[in-house]
Amino acid sequence: MRLRMRRHHISMSCLFSFLISELLFVVRGSLAVLLMRSRISVVVWTELILRFIHGIRKSRLLLCHHVNRHLLCQFHTQFPLTIQSSYTLDMFKVPVHQVAGHQAIGGKLGPLVDDDGRFYKPLQSGERGSTEKAFYTSFSSNTSIPEDIRRFFPVFHGTQVLEASDGSGPCPHLVLQDIVSGHLSPSIMDIKMGANTWPPQSPEDYITRCLEKDRETTSINLGFRIEGFHIYRSEESDLWKPEKQFIKSFSAQDVRLVLKKFVSSNASPDLDLNPDCAFASIVYGGSTGILAQLRELKAWFEVQTIYRFYSCSVLMMHGKGGSGAAVKLVDFAHVVDGEGVIDHNFLGGLCSLIEFISKATQDEYPNKTCLKDSENNRSSSDNCTCE
Amino acid sequence: MRLRMRRHHISMSCLFSFLISELLFVVRGSLAVLLMRSRISVVVWTELILRFIHGIRKSRLLLCHHVNRHLLCQFHTQFPLTIQSSYTLDMFKVPVHQVAGHQAIGGKLGPLVDDDGRFYKPLQSGERGSTEKAFYTSFSSNTSIPEDIRRFFPVFHGTQVLEASDGSGPCPHLVLQDIVSGHLSPSIMDIKMGANTWPPQSPEDYITRCLEKDRETTSINLGFRIEGFHIYRSEESDLWKPEKQFIKSFSAQDVRLVLKKFVSSNASPDLDLNPDCAFASIVYGGSTGILAQLRELKAWFEVQTIYRFYSCSVLMMHGKGGSGAAVKLVDFAHVVDGEGVIDHNFLGGLCSLIEFISKATQDEYPNKTCLKDSENNRSSSDNCTCE
Repeated sequence: MRLRMRRHHISMSCLFSFLISELLFVVRGSLAVLLMRSRISVVVWTELILRFIHGIRKSRLLLCHHVNRHLLCQFHTQFPLTIQSSYTLDMFKVPVHQVAGHQAIGGKLGPLVDDDGRFYKPLQSGERGSTEKAFYTSFSSNTSIPEDIRRFFPVFHGTQVLEASDGSGPCPHLVLQDIVSGHLSPSIMDIKMGANTWPPQSPEDYITRCLEKDRETTSINLGFRIEGFHIYRSEESDLWKPEKQFIKSFSAQDVRLVLKKFVSSNASPDLDLNPDCAFASIVYGGSTGILAQLRELKAWFEVQTIYRFYSCSVLMMHGKGGSGAAVKLVDFAHVVDGEGVIDHNFLGGLCSLIEFISKATQDEYPNKTCLKDSENNRSSSDNCTCE
Repeated sequence: MRLRMRRHHISMSCLFSFLISELLFVVRGSLAVLLMRSRISVVVWTELILRFIHGIRKSRLLLCHHVNRHLLCQFHTQFPLTIQSSYTLDMFKVPVHQVAGHQAIGGKLGPLVDDDGRFYKPLQSGERGSTEKAFYTSFSSNTSIPEDIRRFFPVFHGTQVLEASDGSGPCPHLVLQDIVSGHLSPSIMDIKMGANTWPPQSPEDYITRCLEKDRETTSINLGFRIEGFHIYRSEESDLWKPEKQFIKSFSAQDVRLVLKKFVSSNASPDLDLNPDCAFASIVYGGSTGILAQLRELKAWFEVQTIYRFYSCSVLMMHGKGGSGAAVKLVDFAHVVDGEGVIDHNFLGGLCSLIEFISKATQDEYPNKTCLKDSENNRSSSDNCTCE
């Protein structure tokens, strides 16, 4: 019911925005030239007007999207040569499957996606942005990276200047593969790797801040920490997405439990409800499951001395019924040159994660064969519960 | 010449000490009872008198040893029932192959060895001593430790109260296997493992001090640091044992070089002299070499969740001509309960060390087969230089 009401509300908003756009059309011709010269975009103006009229914070971006699409279509027709790449926000949406990091909602700067499976990540300010861009540029052209390993990283399509989601104007974005594109109702977990999340040459205050977080969370203890996750509990689009603060307070035991819930059909915040691990075998196990993928990554990390991935995340995801289990690496704003030394910090955390996943679904019931079955399918996993 | 002079000097000292002991013999009968009651040992008194007479700091312990042996033999004969286990210092010597940690010279507290292949380590004060004793007690009785892994740890023979090497009186010692006993002229390297050398629950000031050291040395960067080493350069007992401060300042590049020098017949502090890696294949390579042993340890660390070995050292050693290459783990004063989590900190450092040793002797000259030859002997290693 709630969903229906919201859809109806959006449709009304679109109609309303259409009327506004018609009104704006009257003054647009002369206004556009003025705005272009003063380097204030049409998008920003439109958003400001809409925000004033509606005062509805939550639907602001969606509404803006519809208005922009209509406005810019007409704008394109009349002023085809004046359109810059920074005026293409109409193509973009806020990613619905983002579980960690800054999100492009509430007027904040965050990544956007399009319908062609691309993920647009705003280049972070200062060294972080340049480091991440330098990493993607280096990685995509480095011929010594095995193809089997390359698949764990989002494909890099260069950079593009486009309208920032916070309305601050044109902003360079990394154009990446949208790694969740194509997955219907994907359950996703973002795991920040390494006991230490700070590169050794960082400024003192940054190290102090990171160290504090690493000690407060499970990073120092486990060699990794869960940064965020959401789990689809059923095919009714019933999503469990806990608050960041809740996740931040996880103990080792909580992490164990959540790794079980991640592959359960009955995942919930209720601590008394045992996860059924219904998809454990299909998601974690088998020759193409998450454990096999993590072990492939581990083998590479045991020898690669090109990069050191501080504060980088492993994204684990699977679709409906545990299908399409995949591992990806994301967030490279703190990658540094390996200088001939392996990334023992990432590798240690990766070994710990592998052992944790293996054990989380096995050790309490060692007779169960959840993860030992190499060629699992969904029907076999139905008989395989780990709690 | 120097050695001969020293020997002559020691013989003279022994003769002198014999005369002193004869003088002491006159008052010993009554003095002994008094000393025993006041809980001040004969050994301490003898040492104090000798120190005053000779004022020779370097030969003090050897001299003391001879005097004690003579005195206590007579003492045993006359007062057989009053002798305590704390009066058995005459059996003990300062280990000559210790490369790191406090040494029992210059009136300091340190470990002692006997001729039966036992190593007596004074129980450290406070929590460290009790932690190390608890570890050895737990480890020696834990039936889940595979025998193949047990061989990497010194055998534990319990504890024994004996006279402390600093003359402070009776002190409980851990009685351990003397792991270098039986090796003639062993080259030894002590490598402290882990990027972080502090257990997470340590007091703040301890963490601050450790972190500072970890960042100053190669620990954070490499996941391990060399704590000390000595290398026999030839069969003439020509030993290279650098100062602690020199080792502390090692860069990653220095570590690479020293790992080569460790298996070279021409090891020297001279940076212009390339190490010949004469023993690289026999020490590091092969099915029983150091790399194979480290890989065995690694396989265990990937699954063991019983202990976490903070600030623990890997001792690598080999005898003359690269014979008897062995790996041992020592120093368990900061071992904590694994609580079901693998020791990702130690494991990361171990992976880094393995990769470092493999590469240090291979990568610059990839055509050389120093470490690939699985059944090396010394004659084949003669043709195999890595620099």
